[in-house]
Amino acid sequence: MLPFKTLLSLQRKSSIPVYRQIAHGLMDLIRSGIMQPGSFLPSSREMAVQLQVHRKTVVAAYEELFSQDWIETMPRKGVRVSPLLPEIRPRTFKSVPKINGYSADAGFSFRRMGPWVAMSPAGSKPRLVLNDGFPDARIAPIEELMKTYRRYFRLTTTERSVMYSDPAGSIRLRDAIAAFLSDSRGLNVERSHVLISSGAQMAIYMAANMLIQNGSTVLVGEPNYPNANFIFQQLGASLIRVPVDEYGIDVDRIDRICRRKKPSLLYIVPHHHHPTTVTLSADRRMKLLQLINTHRLPVIEDDYDYDFHYGKGPILPLATADHGGRVIYVGSLSKCLASSIRVGYMVAPQDFIKEASSLRRMINIRGDILLEEALADLYHSGAMQRHIRKSVKLYRERRDRFCEMLADAMGDKIAFNVPPGGMAAWVRFREEYPLPGIAQEAARLGLFMSDGHFYNSGSVRYNALRMGFASLNEQEMTEIVAILKKLTERTGRLSDS
Amino acid sequence: MLPFKTLLSLQRKSSIPVYRQIAHGLMDLIRSGIMQPGSFLPSSREMAVQLQVHRKTVVAAYEELFSQDWIETMPRKGVRVSPLLPEIRPRTFKSVPKINGYSADAGFSFRRMGPWVAMSPAGSKPRLVLNDGFPDARIAPIEELMKTYRRYFRLTTTERSVMYSDPAGSIRLRDAIAAFLSDSRGLNVERSHVLISSGAQMAIYMAANMLIQNGSTVLVGEPNYPNANFIFQQLGASLIRVPVDEYGIDVDRIDRICRRKKPSLLYIVPHHHHPTTVTLSADRRMKLLQLINTHRLPVIEDDYDYDFHYGKGPILPLATADHGGRVIYVGSLSKCLASSIRVGYMVAPQDFIKEASSLRRMINIRGDILLEEALADLYHSGAMQRHIRKSVKLYRERRDRFCEMLADAMGDKIAFNVPPGGMAAWVRFREEYPLPGIAQEAARLGLFMSDGHFYNSGSVRYNALRMGFASLNEQEMTEIVAILKKLTERTGRLSDS
Repeated sequence: MLPFKTLLSLQRKSSIPVYRQIAHGLMDLIRSGIMQPGSFLPSSREMAVQLQVHRKTVVAAYEELFSQDWIETMPRKGVRVSPLLPEIRPRTFKSVPKINGYSADAGFSFRRMGPWVAMSPAGSKPRLVLNDGFPDARIAPIEELMKTYRRYFRLTTTERSVMYSDPAGSIRLRDAIAAFLSDSRGLNVERSHVLISSGAQMAIYMAANMLIQNGSTVLVGEPNYPNANFIFQQLGASLIRVPVDEYGIDVDRIDRICRRKKPSLLYIVPHHHHPTTVTLSADRRMKLLQLINTHRLPVIEDDYDYDFHYGKGPILPLATADHGGRVIYVGSLSKCLASSIRVGYMVAPQDFIKEASSLRRMINIRGDILLEEALADLYHSGAMQRHIRKSVKLYRERRDRFCEMLADAMGDKIAFNVPPGGMAAWVRFREEYPLPGIAQEAARLGLFMSDGHFYNSGSVRYNALRMGFASLNEQEMTEIVAILKKLTERTGRLSDS
Repeated sequence: MLPFKTLLSLQRKSSIPVYRQIAHGLMDLIRSGIMQPGSFLPSSREMAVQLQVHRKTVVAAYEELFSQDWIETMPRKGVRVSPLLPEIRPRTFKSVPKINGYSADAGFSFRRMGPWVAMSPAGSKPRLVLNDGFPDARIAPIEELMKTYRRYFRLTTTERSVMYSDPAGSIRLRDAIAAFLSDSRGLNVERSHVLISSGAQMAIYMAANMLIQNGSTVLVGEPNYPNANFIFQQLGASLIRVPVDEYGIDVDRIDRICRRKKPSLLYIVPHHHHPTTVTLSADRRMKLLQLINTHRLPVIEDDYDYDFHYGKGPILPLATADHGGRVIYVGSLSKCLASSIRVGYMVAPQDFIKEASSLRRMINIRGDILLEEALADLYHSGAMQRHIRKSVKLYRERRDRFCEMLADAMGDKIAFNVPPGGMAAWVRFREEYPLPGIAQEAARLGLFMSDGHFYNSGSVRYNALRMGFASLNEQEMTEIVAILKKLTERTGRLSDS
C-alpha cells in the first residue's frame, strides 16, 4: 500500500473539509501517475486507519471521486482507479506536484502592458491624501441615487431585460445626457450619438481601439494626461508630443506635422487641459477646427470636467462646432458625483457609436444598467443639475482658499496659476525642491502625494504635480499645506547649508 | 448689417437660454467665415431690435462672447470680432453649417467591430423574457449589499484613496474570493493571484488581449459561448472550432491540432459547457491537462457558474490541478447575485495578474471600489455563501419543474438533457420547428426569446437556444411553456397540411 499518510498530508485546521482534502489528494496522485488506471485503492476501513480519520470521512471522499468518474466499484473486489483514465508515466514521490498551487510565473509568454505608476498609497494608511483632482463624494446626492438604485433591483427579470436592450447603454440615461449636453454646451445630439462607458477612461480606450493599430501615430500634448498615453502606446501607437503652453496646445505645430504625415488620431483636452489646466485660446481653437477638416484628422476631445468652470462662461467644446463628424467627445459622470461611480460617455457620429457598442459589449457585456437607470433619474429630477451648481460654488471657494494658502505658505518655492476650473491646480516646484524627496518625507508625516514622475515623459521632467483641492475641506487643506510648507523649508535649509 | 434674424433662428421654447443661442449662433457665423475677424457687430440695441429680444439678452450674449475672446470692445466704436482670429474664406449663406449638429457618419475611417446579435428585446416591451441563464436578482441579498455600499460613500477621500491603492481591485474582495475559491474548489490561491474585473466578460477580454495578436489562432468549442468568439475575432485571431459532444470538447482533436501548429490559446468551459451544459469527462480532463503541459498551451478556463451544481459533487476546475501556471481561471459574481452587478475575477500566475492590472487600469481606471468593498463584506458575513446555498436549492427545484413542464408540453418536438447545473437548459428544436419563425410569433404573444442564430457558426445551424429557468417563478414558467407549446403545435399543423 502507498504511504498515503505522507502523500496526502491532511490539514485538520484548514477550512477545506478533510474528506475533500482526501479526494483532491487522491486525484492528484492519479493525475501525476502515482496511482495508475485500474489499480486498487485500500478499503475505506484500511484507509481510515492509515490516515487516522473516521471511516465515514473516507467513504465521503470515495463518493466524491466516484461521482466524478475517477474511481469505480468492483463488486466483491473493492474500489479501483477507473481504467478508462489515460496512463501517465509515474514520477518519483519527490516530484509530487504541490497540491492546488498557482505559481508565480505563467507557463506561457504574453504581452507586457508596460508600467503603471501608482496614484494612491499602497500598504500604508496615510492620514491625508493629495489626489490629482477628485470630486468630494461627501456632498453628492448619494442617498437619492441609492434609493432609486435599490428600487430597480426589485424589478422583474423581464423588466430588466428590456432595459438591457440597447448595447450602447441605458436608453433613458443616454436621453438624459443628450439633453444635458444640449442645455449646458449647445451640443445638439440625441441618444443615438451617445454611448455609456465605465468612466471616461473606457470611452478613450474604446475610441482609440477603433482608430489605432500597430504602427499608428497619435498626437498628444506635452505634458499630457498619462493614462491616455498609456492606452495609445499599449495599442501599438507611437506618440508625437506637441508642446502645450499657456494658450493650450501648439496648433501650428499640429498643422506642420499633418502636412508631413497622417496621424491616426489627435487626443486633446482643450478646456481645462490635463495636467496644466490651461484653456485653448479662441484663435487656436478656430485654426484647429480648420485643420481637423483639412486633414480629415480624427480627434478625441476629452472634456472631463467641463461643468466645473469658475470663470464667466466656459469655452464651448470643439464638438459643438462644425467638425465634419471628426470629433469624438468624451465626458464623465464620475467627476460630477464620486470617483467610484464609474460612468462616462462618448459622443460621436452614429456609425461610430454603433460599432463602439459592439466593442463595449465585448468588454463589459451589459454594464451596470440599474445604476445607469438610477443616474437617469438624477437628471430627470434635476438633482444632478442642482448638485453640479452646488459643487461649482463650493469648489470655487475651495480653489480660492487653497490657492491663497499655497501662495502664502510657499509662493516663492513654487509656480502655479489659479485654475479657471476643474478640481486641481498644476503646481510646479522650483528645482531646488525635488518632489521625490518631498513626497517621501510627506509619507512619513502621514500625507500621500504624487512624487511627480507620473507626468514626466521621456526627456521632459516637470517636478510638478496636480493638487486636487475639490475634495478637501478647510481643515484638510490647512494640514496639507502646513506639511508642504514644513518640508520645503527643510529642503531649502538643507540645500542652503 | 447681416440678416441676423434669419441666420440665428432663435427658438424660444428651447431649454437653451436665448442669450446662449445668440452667442453660439454668432460663434458659428465667425467660425464659418460669414463674420470676418475685425468686423463690427451691431450695437446691442440694434441687435435686440432685429432679433426681437430684450436688450439685456443681447448684452448677456455679447458678454459670453467677450469672456471667451471671440469679440472685443473698442471704446466709442462698438464691438468687433477679435482681429486675432484666423481668416476663413466665407461660404455662401446656403452652406451655413447646421448649428451644433452631429452627423450620422464619421468623417474618418475606423475599425469595424463586427456584428452583435441582440440578446434582449429592442423597442417593444414584452410581458415575458426567456433569457439565456440569468440568476434571479429578486432573491439576492441586495438590501444588505446596498446598506454597506451606501455606508462606504460616507468615507473620507483619504479612506477611499487607500482602498484604490491596488490596481488589481479591492484587496479585501480579492482576499475574500481567494478564500472562497479555496473552500469551494480547493483552489489554493491568494490575493496576488486574483484580479477583479467588470464581469467575467472583461476578464476574458483582458486575458485574450494579452495572449492574442493579429494572425493568432484560438481553439474554441463548437458550439461555443459566442461572446468569447467575438472577442477573439475582434482581436485579430482566427478560430479553430473543436467539436463538443456529450463528454465535452474533443480533447484528442485538440492534441492533433497542437502537434501541427501552436495555437495561442484554448478557451474552454469544462464544467457546465456554454451553451450545451455538458461536463468534460474525467478521462478527457486528464488528457487535456497532459497536453496543456506537453504543448505549453495557454488556457482560459471559463467557470462562470461553478457554484450552481445540482448533482453530487461538482467537478473540480482544471485550475485546481497541476497545469504549470498555464490555466487562467475566470469566474463571475454576476451569476451569484444579479446580472447587473458587473463583478467577475481572473485567477492566474502573479506575473500575469500584474500585467493584467495595468490593462485593467487602462480600460477602467479605478473600478467601482465601494461596490467591491461591499461585496467583500457579503463574503465576510457569510451572506454570500448562504445566498448561494439558498439559490442552489431554489434553482434545482426550478430546473426540475421547468424540464418537467417542457417534456410534458413538447417532448416530441425538442431534444434536451436535464442540465447538471447552471441556470439554463440547452434545447434543440426538431427541424420542422424552425426557431426564427417561432421567436417571431412568440414576440407577438408577448414573449421575447432568442431565435437561435446567436449559436450558429459558419456552416453549423443548431436550431437551438438556451432557456434560462433560474430567474423564472412558477407562473412565468407556466406561461412561457404554454406559449411555446401553442406555437410548436401551430407550426406542426402548418407543416402537416
